[in-house]
Parts: sequence; C-alpha cells; structure tokens
Amino acid sequence: MKPMIVLGLDPGLRTTGWGSVFLKDKEVIYQPSGLIKTPEKCPTPERLAYLFQALTTIIREYCPEEVSVEEVFVNKNPKSSLKLALARGVVLCAPAVIGLPVFSYAPNYMKKALSGYGHADKNQIGWAVQQILKLKTPPQKDAADALGLAICHSYAKSTPQCSFD
Amino acid sequence: MKPMIVLGLDPGLRTTGWGSVFLKDKEVIYQPSGLIKTPEKCPTPERLAYLFQALTTIIREYCPEEVSVEEVFVNKNPKSSLKLALARGVVLCAPAVIGLPVFSYAPNYMKKALSGYGHADKNQIGWAVQQILKLKTPPQKDAADALGLAICHSYAKSTPQCSFD
Repeated sequence: MKPMIVLGLDPGLRTTGWGSVFLKDKEVIYQPSGLIKTPEKCPTPERLAYLFQALTTIIREYCPEEVSVEEVFVNKNPKSSLKLALARGVVLCAPAVIGLPVFSYAPNYMKKALSGYGHADKNQIGWAVQQILKLKTPPQKDAADALGLAICHSYAKSTPQCSFD
Repeated sequence: MKPMIVLGLDPGLRTTGWGSVFLKDKEVIYQPSGLIKTPEKCPTPERLAYLFQALTTIIREYCPEEVSVEEVFVNKNPKSSLKLALARGVVLCAPAVIGLPVFSYAPNYMKKALSGYGHADKNQIGWAVQQILKLKTPPQKDAADALGLAICHSYAKSTPQCSFD
C-alpha cells in the first residue's frame, strides 16, 4: 500500500476538529491538527460558508488523499442533532468537491478501534491518540476525535480484515 | 425598494427544487425554475458535492440577490430528517460562499403566505404558485415549493409588517 495522508474530521457547527496522519507501512505518524471555530455571532449560512472555506484551505495546504468523518445519529436533543447534521453536510461536501474520497465511522467504532472500548470518554481517546502517535502531550480536546478518526481509517486501510464492531 | 431576483430552494439529498422570481414594485414575476437531481448510485459525499456545484452554477447563471430556503424539522423518521439536514447544510452554505444572504422559512409559514392555509398540500401550493406567477400550467412538483419560498420571501420583503404565523 502506498503511503498516504489521511485527514480526520469531527464536525460541529461551532467547532470542527481536524487532524491528519501519515500512514506508511502500517505505521501512523502525526501530522498537523487543529480546530475550525466558526464566527459565533454570524447566522448559520455564514458559519457553514466559513467552515467550507476553512476546510478547503486545510485540504489544499496539507494535501490529504482520503478523509474520515464521524457519523451523526439523532440523540436526545433532535434540534441539536439537526444543527450538527448541517455542519456534517458541509464537512462531507467540501473534500468531495475537491475530488477526495470520504469515509464515515460511527463514534463507537472509532473509540473501540483506538482504545478497545466503544464507550471510551474524551480523556481516554485523547490518551490513546497520544500513545499511538507518540505525542509528548495530549492533543487539543476537539482535535483528539478528529485524529482518532484519521487513525481509525488508517487501521481499516492497513488491516482491512479487522472489524471493531 | 430596488428590484431584485429571489431564489427559492427546497432542499433534498435526492432532489432539490429551485425557483427564482423577479420582485419589482411589489409584483412577483416568474423566472426560471427546475430540479437538481443528484446521481442516485453515488455515495452521499459525492451527491452533496454535485448539489453544491449545481447550486453554484445556477446562482452564477441567474444572479439572484437573496435566497430563501425551507427549514427542516425532525419528523417521524429521524434518519431521513438527518439526511435532509445534510442536504440543507449544503443548500445554506453554497449561496453564502458566494456572499448571498440566505433566509429560512418554516414550511407552514410559506404555505400560509401563499394559500392562506398552513397545511395546504402540494397541489394547492402548485395552484397558488400558478395563479400568483400567472403561469399557463402548474410548475413542476418539486419546483413549486421552491417557487413558493421565493414568493414567500418576496412578500416578506415588500410588506415587512405582514405576519403569516
């Protein structure tokens, strides 16, 4: 399998986490990560446009070849699930407009792939990401899930026979 | 109030209706309308990218100054509400990326503004759109709601003191 950069994206209307890894010979190496914070006082369409443009800039700068995005389910608050889905629509769309393939993973699948436990909390995922990528400090809170998604997709690519369901 | 073109958009992952009207001296004049049908067999990110690109092309071709989009609520099927919200995210984002202001109307508000009845069915809305825009035949089914949204926003602009709630 040829080496590649995988970009993980954890969508949100307020904050979208992003994190990239370099996958080479089954080794997963840390690449830049960060947060896209949309302007709080702007109407939703403008926030979504900001998110689209920020994603486009990140993709053009770091040149990932594949993208891994968190799936969205309806939770206890349907209104906030819909807001999240608006952001997810943009997060799925922006890389596809550039021609990148986009893959989706359920949060529990990603958590199990990283920590062995499908209901791991934010801290446990942060710790797992830190260990796997050999980081000196834990990644930023919202970027940890994004890096987790990039790692999860890298695992699925390098060991396609594995299943974490 | 200066004359302007208003673009109405009725979002859907499979089919997004669009319809434009020219608003001049409180008169609402028909402009082109149509349907964006995303490629059925493609994965969701590619369908969303197709939708984004089609919207961008329509906006560049017909030069609307304001955009009116249908609101989404969680209905009996939360899964299909989420799918709709993905498309809505892209429908809100694409005009905003170009710098157009985007307004949202609840389906019942639009229906009441057009027909006087908040629970009007598709045929009643089609008929109302046909009468208001002086069309010889009813508009295409999915484009009727889009034209309805464009008319609804035009009414709200030309008679801001009105309320259809």
